[in-house]
Amino acid sequence: MLMDGVHGSEGRKKKHPISRSVKTGLPPGVLVPVGHKYSETTFLTLITYDATGVDMRDGADMGHVKAALASGRKVWLQVHGLHGTALIQEIGELLDLHSLVLEDIVNTDQRPKIEEFESFLLLVLKKVSLFGTEVDTEQVSIALYPNLLVSFHEQDSDFFLPIEGRLKAQGSKMAQRGVDYLAYAIIDLIVDNYYVVLDSLTGEVESLETSLMLTPNVEHLAHLQALKRTSIRLRKSIWPMREILGRIEKIDGDLINDSTTPYLRDVYDHTVQIVENIEGFRDLLSGLLDIYLSSISNRLNEVMKVLTIISTVFIPMTFIAGIYGMNFVHMPELSWKYGYYLTLAAMAAVSGVMVVFFKRRKWL
Amino acid sequence: MLMDGVHGSEGRKKKHPISRSVKTGLPPGVLVPVGHKYSETTFLTLITYDATGVDMRDGADMGHVKAALASGRKVWLQVHGLHGTALIQEIGELLDLHSLVLEDIVNTDQRPKIEEFESFLLLVLKKVSLFGTEVDTEQVSIALYPNLLVSFHEQDSDFFLPIEGRLKAQGSKMAQRGVDYLAYAIIDLIVDNYYVVLDSLTGEVESLETSLMLTPNVEHLAHLQALKRTSIRLRKSIWPMREILGRIEKIDGDLINDSTTPYLRDVYDHTVQIVENIEGFRDLLSGLLDIYLSSISNRLNEVMKVLTIISTVFIPMTFIAGIYGMNFVHMPELSWKYGYYLTLAAMAAVSGVMVVFFKRRKWL
Amino acid sequence: MLMDGVHGSEGRKKKHPISRSVKTGLPPGVLVPVGHKYSETTFLTLITYDATGVDMRDGADMGHVKAALASGRKVWLQVHGLHGTALIQEIGELLDLHSLVLEDIVNTDQRPKIEEFESFLLLVLKKVSLFGTEVDTEQVSIALYPNLLVSFHEQDSDFFLPIEGRLKAQGSKMAQRGVDYLAYAIIDLIVDNYYVVLDSLTGEVESLETSLMLTPNVEHLAHLQALKRTSIRLRKSIWPMREILGRIEKIDGDLINDSTTPYLRDVYDHTVQIVENIEGFRDLLSGLLDIYLSSISNRLNEVMKVLTIISTVFIPMTFIAGIYGMNFVHMPELSWKYGYYLTLAAMAAVSGVMVVFFKRRKWL
Amino acid sequence: MLMDGVHGSEGRKKKHPISRSVKTGLPPGVLVPVGHKYSETTFLTLITYDATGVDMRDGADMGHVKAALASGRKVWLQVHGLHGTALIQEIGELLDLHSLVLEDIVNTDQRPKIEEFESFLLLVLKKVSLFGTEVDTEQVSIALYPNLLVSFHEQDSDFFLPIEGRLKAQGSKMAQRGVDYLAYAIIDLIVDNYYVVLDSLTGEVESLETSLMLTPNVEHLAHLQALKRTSIRLRKSIWPMREILGRIEKIDGDLINDSTTPYLRDVYDHTVQIVENIEGFRDLLSGLLDIYLSSISNRLNEVMKVLTIISTVFIPMTFIAGIYGMNFVHMPELSWKYGYYLTLAAMAAVSGVMVVFFKRRKWL
Amino acid sequence: MLMDGVHGSEGRKKKHPISRSVKTGLPPGVLVPVGHKYSETTFLTLITYDATGVDMRDGADMGHVKAALASGRKVWLQVHGLHGTALIQEIGELLDLHSLVLEDIVNTDQRPKIEEFESFLLLVLKKVSLFGTEVDTEQVSIALYPNLLVSFHEQDSDFFLPIEGRLKAQGSKMAQRGVDYLAYAIIDLIVDNYYVVLDSLTGEVESLETSLMLTPNVEHLAHLQALKRTSIRLRKSIWPMREILGRIEKIDGDLINDSTTPYLRDVYDHTVQIVENIEGFRDLLSGLLDIYLSSISNRLNEVMKVLTIISTVFIPMTFIAGIYGMNFVHMPELSWKYGYYLTLAAMAAVSGVMVVFFKRRKWL
Repeated sequence: MLMDGVHGSEGRKKKHPISRSVKTGLPPGVLVPVGHKYSETTFLTLITYDATGVDMRDGADMGHVKAALASGRKVWLQVHGLHGTALIQEIGELLDLHSLVLEDIVNTDQRPKIEEFESFLLLVLKKVSLFGTEVDTEQVSIALYPNLLVSFHEQDSDFFLPIEGRLKAQGSKMAQRGVDYLAYAIIDLIVDNYYVVLDSLTGEVESLETSLMLTPNVEHLAHLQALKRTSIRLRKSIWPMREILGRIEKIDGDLINDSTTPYLRDVYDHTVQIVENIEGFRDLLSGLLDIYLSSISNRLNEVMKVLTIISTVFIPMTFIAGIYGMNFVHMPELSWKYGYYLTLAAMAAVSGVMVVFFKRRKWL
Repeated sequence: MLMDGVHGSEGRKKKHPISRSVKTGLPPGVLVPVGHKYSETTFLTLITYDATGVDMRDGADMGHVKAALASGRKVWLQVHGLHGTALIQEIGELLDLHSLVLEDIVNTDQRPKIEEFESFLLLVLKKVSLFGTEVDTEQVSIALYPNLLVSFHEQDSDFFLPIEGRLKAQGSKMAQRGVDYLAYAIIDLIVDNYYVVLDSLTGEVESLETSLMLTPNVEHLAHLQALKRTSIRLRKSIWPMREILGRIEKIDGDLINDSTTPYLRDVYDHTVQIVENIEGFRDLLSGLLDIYLSSISNRLNEVMKVLTIISTVFIPMTFIAGIYGMNFVHMPELSWKYGYYLTLAAMAAVSGVMVVFFKRRKWL
Repeated sequence: MLMDGVHGSEGRKKKHPISRSVKTGLPPGVLVPVGHKYSETTFLTLITYDATGVDMRDGADMGHVKAALASGRKVWLQVHGLHGTALIQEIGELLDLHSLVLEDIVNTDQRPKIEEFESFLLLVLKKVSLFGTEVDTEQVSIALYPNLLVSFHEQDSDFFLPIEGRLKAQGSKMAQRGVDYLAYAIIDLIVDNYYVVLDSLTGEVESLETSLMLTPNVEHLAHLQALKRTSIRLRKSIWPMREILGRIEKIDGDLINDSTTPYLRDVYDHTVQIVENIEGFRDLLSGLLDIYLSSISNRLNEVMKVLTIISTVFIPMTFIAGIYGMNFVHMPELSWKYGYYLTLAAMAAVSGVMVVFFKRRKWL
Repeated sequence: MLMDGVHGSEGRKKKHPISRSVKTGLPPGVLVPVGHKYSETTFLTLITYDATGVDMRDGADMGHVKAALASGRKVWLQVHGLHGTALIQEIGELLDLHSLVLEDIVNTDQRPKIEEFESFLLLVLKKVSLFGTEVDTEQVSIALYPNLLVSFHEQDSDFFLPIEGRLKAQGSKMAQRGVDYLAYAIIDLIVDNYYVVLDSLTGEVESLETSLMLTPNVEHLAHLQALKRTSIRLRKSIWPMREILGRIEKIDGDLINDSTTPYLRDVYDHTVQIVENIEGFRDLLSGLLDIYLSSISNRLNEVMKVLTIISTVFIPMTFIAGIYGMNFVHMPELSWKYGYYLTLAAMAAVSGVMVVFFKRRKWL
Repeated sequence: MLMDGVHGSEGRKKKHPISRSVKTGLPPGVLVPVGHKYSETTFLTLITYDATGVDMRDGADMGHVKAALASGRKVWLQVHGLHGTALIQEIGELLDLHSLVLEDIVNTDQRPKIEEFESFLLLVLKKVSLFGTEVDTEQVSIALYPNLLVSFHEQDSDFFLPIEGRLKAQGSKMAQRGVDYLAYAIIDLIVDNYYVVLDSLTGEVESLETSLMLTPNVEHLAHLQALKRTSIRLRKSIWPMREILGRIEKIDGDLINDSTTPYLRDVYDHTVQIVENIEGFRDLLSGLLDIYLSSISNRLNEVMKVLTIISTVFIPMTFIAGIYGMNFVHMPELSWKYGYYLTLAAMAAVSGVMVVFFKRRKWL
């Protein structure tokens, strides 16, 4: 399995996303992938397992998949990369997926959703990760059959390694349980990752708060805006995830085992908590804007105070100097012996009065 | 089919819309078209089709329509231009439409809605297109009968050409399916067009954001206001469209085939996504206002700083010059040999202190 | 019928409204009119009609009313002016109205509402009209019996003339239908009038927007506030009207004929649209406030720029002049031949540098 | 009955309210009165009445109460003052009230509520009155039994005198009807009093609006804040009152007679209207804040304009004076015959240009 | 029982909380405590009681617990400290708790919730306490069995001493009632404590309001932000508590005795009131921000006024002095006998005019 994943910054292949508007006027069910194009090629990883052990094959072909399905063991088929339209079409035919379902899987600007079909359950989920203040969302779709789980990933990444690890572990509970528990594990990992993202965002907000107070400038505001946009995107992903997990509990049928239900309810509780945290996060951000705006006002105030103090101290003194700079023939003070010193004293007195005035008003 | 449509800017015939208030006091069911008047005349395009082929006649008359209805083939009747009251009245009589339904079709400031009647389904939809930052909405009404679809358009445009193309294509699925699928195709095209509009609006917002930071002025604010108004109009159109598509799924009876339902649910998902995108768009806009206001504050701050620095550096120096411009007879410094140079040095020292002070406060 | 109505400005008799608080401590059902007092006296207009013709009598008395009720024809009794308590009490007794119902009719600061009674339906509606930016609301109550409609008006006005006209028209549909259709016509006229009011308010907002950008001052803000208050009042009237029309459809019994229901649903759609328009109107207003505040900021900015430019250009030059105004004995420059011209050149250079600096910062 | 009530300002005994936090850690049902302590002592007023007449006894004791209950007449027992714990406990035992009910009655920071018990109905209501901009709320609890109404008041006041008056009036309807009608009368009086409070608050807002425009200062803002707090408190009282009256209609059983229901629905309508008025009042207040803030901005603008005009007119002139105050030996203008007058003319020209510039910018 | 609790400031062991994100990728049910780590060790306090008396043992071991459970008396088992994973696991096994339940108990950043299981009821609650403006929340989980209550505390504190006291009191009601009443007592104590916190926060807000008006600065704004954050945290705790108490009433089964229900409804009313108080508190805070911002504006205004007054008084006078400082040969005024005095008089006149101007504009 390749290691250049979403977490290695040099391995990042993000380009400008393809907008859904390119599909306007096309018939439905035509597979035109919409969204970021993380990888050009598509390849399969096939994991077959039961209580006795786990087999894993990277770069499997359709023949392997058919054999695995026939074996009666539990199967986890991972599809990496959504731009290999031909292969995905083939999988769609094997599993008898409606063309609209395939479209939902391939268009990665999809809203998270759950759809029940006669023989399987489709989950479209959003995995988030953070680059700077930007949130990247990657779509993970899960098709859950009685003994088969197909997961569609936008790219090959090491994100799900921990699950594979737990599956392969000696006496693994996960290997003993059904694929519904595997689905739970995937959902749980995706949801837990929101905490990681929120944690680092919160850290960023705290450092931003300090910067804002010390040196309010437009770059910080742009940063604030970016964080706000990020929180909007996060909320846009987590809200439907919450709905999905609220709904998944109530699904009848045998796809979800009763023993898995409390685990799903647990993840549901987490999504509720994440939603609340994001709301709190947004409150924080709007508080930051207040701090920013009033920091600017404070700065202006401070600037004006300095100008005012300097001006009001010197303007009267300069005026006095101006008086005795006049060239009138008859100005008796000019010929006084201590006229000059008296004038300087008068100036000092005026500035003293001003300083006292400012002290009183607490401007100094 | 004429090509001067809503997309050719020179072909645009937009005038000030006719307000609904002109109808105050009139009895109901009197056909007084309300809204923009795109075209004076009304003409019909008649398309008859089944799996074997498609026939299309521009400028059809009522005789052609009756013949087509009698033929047993599927019929799509397009009515272009809503101001030819007589022709529309004739169609209304042929199809036995209530006078209020005709009024709904002709008054293009209608809210999108769905109404079920015994023999048919009425959909009033809003198609959007963008001119600069202004959104134009055109009303498209669809009356869906078991084997007939009548679409009412405000003007003749090439907007629905792609659908006609897919219909005429060799072995077209659309020609094989019922008119409900045709209705879906029309709705889907209209909804997908919202993405096009949103895309170009988002681009405009991004370029506006940069301008706002560099040169905040009132014209940008007016631009911002225009975008806000546009987002309000978009939301006003898409919200009821969402309701309609949410409701259309649950309609009993034979008008909507079961095989079409998943397609309609798919469009419904798109409307949900568009609503969310518009909300995000509005959040962006309100963020822009914050940026704008604080850009102005920043500018003011910057202006004040320059004034303050210049003033506070020169005011004390000018004061010193004023002192030695006084004409007192007894001013010993005046006759000192290096008095002048000492004074200049003192001035330099004062301005140096000021500069250091400003450096400390990070104003320079 | 008198023609000095709510629409003739000289005929307007508006005084300060009587507050509901005058009723504190009084027993219920005591008829103390609350609200504006438009007219002192109360008089009746009696219209009897059926498909064969229409009879109308201004200034009818109770005898006429009883005779009309006994005639078996459809009856529209208009009560003009709500302050003639005795006459209204008499009508209440004739129609067996609960004292609380009479109170609701007479107190014109009532919230629009609908109440079902065993033998009749009570509708309390609000008609709006515009004086400047102020909205006047007049209460119109309708008691709908199987063959009788009693409408209570605050004053005698020509507002309902169009309905009377349609009733009297040759072969009038309205005369053939039941009084429920008459009720619909009244409601429709009242609701349509909201469009008229909204149209002229929107025009006012647009002209205000231009004024705000050019000359922001507190009077414009007061104007804005007045428009905001007006939109609040409009909303306060239309919201319950919407509820009423939403509820009226679902009323069982014979008072509302099935053939009238689509008309009422149509009016309901209009109220929904008006509510949306008012919301859009409020958004516009809050946008205006933003424009206003930033116009003020812009003005301040502009003022400060002028001050800063003038000051920073002249302050250094004045300082230089100050230097050579000093009276030191030893100032070699003073006796240079071109000292004066060099100094002037230096001043020009300084101001040139400043101007370049301002050009760079785009302040000029 | 004592006349020093809540309406006589000298009779006001308001102290700092006792916070509910003093009860932390205490077992439930321990009678520790929480809230304002209006009166130290508790005494009873006993009114027995039926269609034949009304008997009233101030300062009744438990013996009188028991006798009245045994008499078979309708009984209104008023408890004045909630701090005489012993007497209230005695009443609780007589009427078999749960200790938590007694606690609800005695703790006057209670939220208005309605509770149904097997044999009676408990209503906890809030009566408001206004002192300056402050709203005082007094809790009035009503326990309604089939033939007995017990009302608990925080203090002895003349607020309910009008009801007693109507009860004692010759041929009083109230004396003929059941105690449920008496309960209605009490609720109606309390609700109507909200109108009185709102009226005087609205008056205050209007006078504040004028002051804000003329002389914006922080005291006005504090006033605004106080009004805002008041509106919050009013809303906090009236919202649950509305819920209560909405619920009271739907109560089964014999406590509320069918003939009283329309009266209660009438009061319910009033609470709805009051809620709307308070919302409108809050909108007004937030509009005032906008006016306030922009008044301040305007003031600042005005101040800056004056400074700018004076500065920019005089700074260039002063500069010119400075030039000719220089002491260069070679300054030909100085010895021109009309040099002085030409210079004055130049100064006048400069200031004239400036004034024209300001006129153009509409600053003068 | 140790007395160094959450209320003794020296006994506070608060560290940076452990974020939930550390659990990403771990299987569910692995006990990794998340949240603040108040105490390293875990120990048990065992209280057995019935109407005859109360036995209490600090530092009990599992043997004591089993014996107590077998005794048939009512048992209150207190678990202090959640980081002794082994002991908690042991308790979980004894009581047959699902691993996810144990996780909920140990992870103290849990949202308050209620969960019904077959044999017991789990309540996760939040106790708040105040340090400065910071709110500390401590999680208290209660597992309620028919005759056993297990409470899990983050640390050993004296917070629940009052309940123990009431339990041990002679003829204690609490000792006679079931453990459901004990649960009520714990919930009540926790909820009442919110009043204590709100009281002291309100006091702080009031003192902040005064400071803001007198000396608005950024530290006060930071203080405001801290209070806002605190109110968000409080709301985040109390909202789900309200839901829990709203739900607890409706729980079927024998765990909650009917006689305890009114007490729980009483606590529910308190939570409703606390929610309202917090909302009011937030309104207060947003009002403070308005005061703060306009205080700053006022300050700026005041500063500008002083600058403007000084400048506009002295600038014209200085200009006059500048005129007569010019060195023109022909300046007749210079040789006038009273020229100097006339000039001084002119200056006085100019400044007098200015002062009158300012008086008129109410700037002085």
